[in-house]
Amino acid sequence: MALAFFSETDDPRPWRDAILAALPDLDFRVAPELGNLADIDCTLVWKPPKGWHRQFPNLRAILSLGAGVDALLEDADLPRGVPITRMVDAGMGRQMAEYAAYGVMHFHRRMDEYARLQREGRWQPLAPVAARDYPVGILGLGVLGRQAAELLVAMGYPVRAWSRSRKDVAGVESFCGPDELDRCLGAVRVLVNFLPLTPETRGFIDRRLLARLPRGACLINLARGGHVVEDDVLAALDEGILAGALLDVFGAEPLARDHSFWRHPKVVVTPHIAAVTQADDAAAQVIANLRRLRAGEPLHGVVDRDRGY
Amino acid sequence: MALAFFSETDDPRPWRDAILAALPDLDFRVAPELGNLADIDCTLVWKPPKGWHRQFPNLRAILSLGAGVDALLEDADLPRGVPITRMVDAGMGRQMAEYAAYGVMHFHRRMDEYARLQREGRWQPLAPVAARDYPVGILGLGVLGRQAAELLVAMGYPVRAWSRSRKDVAGVESFCGPDELDRCLGAVRVLVNFLPLTPETRGFIDRRLLARLPRGACLINLARGGHVVEDDVLAALDEGILAGALLDVFGAEPLARDHSFWRHPKVVVTPHIAAVTQADDAAAQVIANLRRLRAGEPLHGVVDRDRGY
Repeated sequence: MALAFFSETDDPRPWRDAILAALPDLDFRVAPELGNLADIDCTLVWKPPKGWHRQFPNLRAILSLGAGVDALLEDADLPRGVPITRMVDAGMGRQMAEYAAYGVMHFHRRMDEYARLQREGRWQPLAPVAARDYPVGILGLGVLGRQAAELLVAMGYPVRAWSRSRKDVAGVESFCGPDELDRCLGAVRVLVNFLPLTPETRGFIDRRLLARLPRGACLINLARGGHVVEDDVLAALDEGILAGALLDVFGAEPLARDHSFWRHPKVVVTPHIAAVTQADDAAAQVIANLRRLRAGEPLHGVVDRDRGY
Repeated sequence: MALAFFSETDDPRPWRDAILAALPDLDFRVAPELGNLADIDCTLVWKPPKGWHRQFPNLRAILSLGAGVDALLEDADLPRGVPITRMVDAGMGRQMAEYAAYGVMHFHRRMDEYARLQREGRWQPLAPVAARDYPVGILGLGVLGRQAAELLVAMGYPVRAWSRSRKDVAGVESFCGPDELDRCLGAVRVLVNFLPLTPETRGFIDRRLLARLPRGACLINLARGGHVVEDDVLAALDEGILAGALLDVFGAEPLARDHSFWRHPKVVVTPHIAAVTQADDAAAQVIANLRRLRAGEPLHGVVDRDRGY
């Protein structure tokens, strides 16, 4: 069995070492040194160029190096009928839950305002708010959103989550479908985005959605930049509709040098670091799927192309 | 029974309302309108002037509005033989645990470095560290330190705690006494101070102690400013012994306008807000002690004057 690896940002060596340790007879090839293209059974990829997969006539599976497959699915030339798998968690759930909890506390404990007061050299205690009086909204309650919701519940925050279908997570108030979005958003002090990026959710966080939040709410985005209409977020910050934003992902990455987010006093920018795939966890998932592929068994983490995740 | 209230920072009205609702016949007096001083059975105070308690010839108890009684005990004229009680938790444990967890994540997730990169407009992901590889040290494992330790353990951090006597907290490695301090400090990436301020712990966090931490560790102080030799912390930051500090308490508060902490690029200053006594919890403690005082029963939360807390 031969595998073709492509990524502009991931080092192939730890992947090759981990996979060959488990499957020593696998033929691991790294683009652009791919040899006879007809040999390739499967790919292991992060953001290959559009049309890249057309070159493999005998492709049986596409394994994504990340949890989000939105970039892959935008390729109109992606071979039909070939299963695509994505990483399921791979240590990302815990990292994203940490990042979300950090961001919620940043706004809840008014650390953004204290940072401004520090710059002015002003000692001014602000009124505290109890965690139980600071409802957190979560958009998307899949494997990743759920872990953040559970941590926030354990920390004493009321959690309201909106998702495609109703979910049962202890301590979390579940809302679903377009009809319940307003009720979910109407009471939250901070909104954390965990949605998958699909044609339906692209641009979901726009002026209209932000206007449904209580005035002065905050936004945390650690899912995808494409969920957010960036100009609408800037306008909402300037009009006081939003009091602050912690943003890890952007429409174009790296974020352009002259983008207003860098210098906006109410925006915290991090460079897409909320969660990094952990090689050991992730390699184990890839190895398990390669074994299934070889044995002709169904793969795990297969993407529903229509749903988009 | 008559009570004398003194505080320059706390509003007496919510205290009076809560206490009189439970004990309607109590005579609640607010300084300086104290009437006949011989009537006063007990005081409810935050930082009264030195010698203030001498004026009450029939005093039977001093109830502190805060958890720390270091300022009270520095009064050489405090009547001997009169029990002093302090707040035990009163919602402070949860708030301090939140603040500690926020600070630990701030350094662990390199948010201090990302803030610097944002100021420079630079997109530069830094190597992530797993929580399990980021040991947290806690000085002081009383009611407050323990809650922070438990939250940090739940979040996946290895926790090493140093205290006067050995403690048994699930998931926490306990160290005690001067002989074990080095072993506790030698492996921690961030040190969180929860000690009580006593003559023994004043100036405890000095150049010598900081030098025992691994180079590049971080410091979080939410206990008392008097624990820290501030010039030693500044020197340690400038020499790279410390990589950062999150400081909520200071030797003199409010922190002086010209203090170097305000403008130091590696210091986050907050104005003594890690924990604020929550009036409902705290009032219930005071009311319970007033009932005990009236019934001639032993009070709860009595301070050991020799130990200092």
